[in-house]
Amino acid sequence: MGVVINCDMGEGYGLYRCGDDAGIMPHIDIGNVACGFHASDPAVMAQTVRLAKEHGVAVGAHPSFPDLQGFGRRDMAMGREELAACVLYQIGALKGFLDAAGLKLNHLKPHGALYGAAMRRPEVAEAIADAAVVYDLPVIGMAGTLHEEVYTARGLGFMSEYYADLDYDAEGRLIITRTHDWRDPEEVTRRAVKVMGAKQATTIAGTTFPMEASTICIHSDTPNAAELAMALKAALKPWMA
Amino acid sequence: MGVVINCDMGEGYGLYRCGDDAGIMPHIDIGNVACGFHASDPAVMAQTVRLAKEHGVAVGAHPSFPDLQGFGRRDMAMGREELAACVLYQIGALKGFLDAAGLKLNHLKPHGALYGAAMRRPEVAEAIADAAVVYDLPVIGMAGTLHEEVYTARGLGFMSEYYADLDYDAEGRLIITRTHDWRDPEEVTRRAVKVMGAKQATTIAGTTFPMEASTICIHSDTPNAAELAMALKAALKPWMA
Amino acid sequence: MGVVINCDMGEGYGLYRCGDDAGIMPHIDIGNVACGFHASDPAVMAQTVRLAKEHGVAVGAHPSFPDLQGFGRRDMAMGREELAACVLYQIGALKGFLDAAGLKLNHLKPHGALYGAAMRRPEVAEAIADAAVVYDLPVIGMAGTLHEEVYTARGLGFMSEYYADLDYDAEGRLIITRTHDWRDPEEVTRRAVKVMGAKQATTIAGTTFPMEASTICIHSDTPNAAELAMALKAALKPWMA
Amino acid sequence: MGVVINCDMGEGYGLYRCGDDAGIMPHIDIGNVACGFHASDPAVMAQTVRLAKEHGVAVGAHPSFPDLQGFGRRDMAMGREELAACVLYQIGALKGFLDAAGLKLNHLKPHGALYGAAMRRPEVAEAIADAAVVYDLPVIGMAGTLHEEVYTARGLGFMSEYYADLDYDAEGRLIITRTHDWRDPEEVTRRAVKVMGAKQATTIAGTTFPMEASTICIHSDTPNAAELAMALKAALKPWMA
Repeated sequence: MGVVINCDMGEGYGLYRCGDDAGIMPHIDIGNVACGFHASDPAVMAQTVRLAKEHGVAVGAHPSFPDLQGFGRRDMAMGREELAACVLYQIGALKGFLDAAGLKLNHLKPHGALYGAAMRRPEVAEAIADAAVVYDLPVIGMAGTLHEEVYTARGLGFMSEYYADLDYDAEGRLIITRTHDWRDPEEVTRRAVKVMGAKQATTIAGTTFPMEASTICIHSDTPNAAELAMALKAALKPWMA
Repeated sequence: MGVVINCDMGEGYGLYRCGDDAGIMPHIDIGNVACGFHASDPAVMAQTVRLAKEHGVAVGAHPSFPDLQGFGRRDMAMGREELAACVLYQIGALKGFLDAAGLKLNHLKPHGALYGAAMRRPEVAEAIADAAVVYDLPVIGMAGTLHEEVYTARGLGFMSEYYADLDYDAEGRLIITRTHDWRDPEEVTRRAVKVMGAKQATTIAGTTFPMEASTICIHSDTPNAAELAMALKAALKPWMA
Repeated sequence: MGVVINCDMGEGYGLYRCGDDAGIMPHIDIGNVACGFHASDPAVMAQTVRLAKEHGVAVGAHPSFPDLQGFGRRDMAMGREELAACVLYQIGALKGFLDAAGLKLNHLKPHGALYGAAMRRPEVAEAIADAAVVYDLPVIGMAGTLHEEVYTARGLGFMSEYYADLDYDAEGRLIITRTHDWRDPEEVTRRAVKVMGAKQATTIAGTTFPMEASTICIHSDTPNAAELAMALKAALKPWMA
Repeated sequence: MGVVINCDMGEGYGLYRCGDDAGIMPHIDIGNVACGFHASDPAVMAQTVRLAKEHGVAVGAHPSFPDLQGFGRRDMAMGREELAACVLYQIGALKGFLDAAGLKLNHLKPHGALYGAAMRRPEVAEAIADAAVVYDLPVIGMAGTLHEEVYTARGLGFMSEYYADLDYDAEGRLIITRTHDWRDPEEVTRRAVKVMGAKQATTIAGTTFPMEASTICIHSDTPNAAELAMALKAALKPWMA
């Protein structure tokens, strides 16, 4: 299996737009579609699934803590059981639109603070797994964290991801920010190629650390996301299936 | 097929309780489970599905307008497409919990103002049908209204219902109220028996009108709902499958 | 008193932006600030009040039906008492930020579907008045409708408004749309000048009808709102105080 | 100034009821009224303020993290500025109903997880103070924590509180739970009398620790809250103003 480009999608809400989904969709392989808890609503989900179908993009669920106002980027203290229910609710809701479109639910990728919390707090990673096992979904996460440990232990597929449009600190930890900035496509692709070719990611200090990635992530709310997606798609051809 | 007792269930929210679901569940056949838009949340849904499974109650979706504060009992002006997405979202969310429990989604019954609006506004009934067809769900509604006309025209199963714990006005129209009152079990069962035996329902004026019902409804937020369910179950035995 | 330009402002939410408030603010006199029920949140409100203060723009409350997902542009069936409480809640919330900034609450203008409903349904106009009287706020509305009749009867100030960036149908009724389109500044100002000079508004049929306006409205989510505000400000100088 | 009994009130939502406010109101001095972020809505707030006025109960704001589904009992990672706005929004909203009733806003008491977070995280206590200073409100909190330190440093009044219906662990730390249990009125009053007389609170281990309280708290969602309020009111007479 080759590397795939994944992108967080469908993150508008009501009249609010977020990201150029139509511009990005042609250049990605799998889309992580927001499920209404940090962004999106039923109408946006219907439209996003339609768009993904048009472009042959495989759709995964992108659930969040219940925090629409904070775009799911604020950590919340939730217990395993209530969180598992919260994630399953969102997966099921998205699956409704996929069933209507005759598409298969492809994978799961937790969003924002939920993603971050699952790297560190076992009950959060277990809650995500509790929901993922219902449909035997592979989960996208960060290698070397509880993501990998817990999902794998639960018998789920695990896809290790490299973030092309975020920074890693000097210790190699992902820096999760509430908003995303424009990125230089040339630098983004050079670093991604290094991840695929040399299996090394670059930190903000200019140092490198080992990185095995089966998928490369970009965010649709990064201002030039479509440009980045196109550039990555071209540059990563040698490693694609 | 005999008559079945249906009940709106799982209408608590967070720490708030609503109705004696545990007391009612043993006495009903099919449960219409709230999906988070007028009541309920993921944790309540998980728990309600668990309870239904224990008692062998078939579970249907009970979607609503998005109006948690108004308990879905305020009409809203929504277009067909956004409403269909709204209903499908709720159905899918509930189906997640059913898939986890190994249960089948049995039917659909719109809630409160959505139910009322679908009797009168074609685009509302069509929107409900748009969602129901995805899973080919039979829909519970009121005979002689757009419920029957639209769902049937769309090739969906239609279950005609009699409301055992609400009143019908002198013209035979259901009186939908925001809250529900205690009901005399003796009177409730006598009227229900008349519906099954004589195919006549009784109005608040004491007059009757023709009523063919394949299901009898009680609401879990009627104060003595469990008592009513038990009394109806006993009284309607002759017409049950 | 001369004519003033009013503008619906502060309609972002969380990370979502809506309209170029910073670009519009220098060119308007009074701002109708969203209160969190159709758009905005506490952080957006704090920021919008700050911006209004910088530019000496008088701030009014812009309350809505509780319908964040629908941007308050879907009618809802609410009774007078619950609606009055709903409006008062929003006014009070905004007043908190004004009190913090040392500003006075200047006026009230209902938003979207609430505005439209108050033109036609007496209990809606009365509910708005019930909240407005608490702070003796003048209310912006449409002349010749229940807006004028009810607010005036309740002893409140009434400001008649002309919509510079919406259309009026052949019968002179405002056409309320869910989203707003780009408008030609030349045509917008020519029509506004005609309203001020000849007291005649122009319909989509090209006909005119009598219009007395003490304020001209533009919406911050009209794509070229800042341009329109600047053009109107220049063209309406002769009628300004 | 003598000791006063404070109670968290008005925590219903829509059709959901929570606590016997009407039963409790006659026996308390000051009410902490929910503001719609963890419980309550505009209609409930209007009604609660009305009830407080009838009984001459002084009303304070009881703001929360924005977490209706979790009843504000889940910690959330929010920055100082967005949290201060969030608290001010709630205070202002409540003040609208007080202004309508001709009542004064008496004090502030953060709710649930917000209360707990402000004991430990300086930016949370500072955010609460940022909102309280707008109306120069005294704040109820726990002595010896950041509550006391921060509010006092900001020049705000501070009211130290003893929880009559919660437990303190062996180290004298308050045990905050998501739901509240029935309490023995005899034990509750005996312990409260000891706090007032001997300035000693009792832990679950049976040991005591120093406690200076200017107010005693009970929760309206403690099942026998009205009974506890009445018993406390009688037993604490000697220390009341």
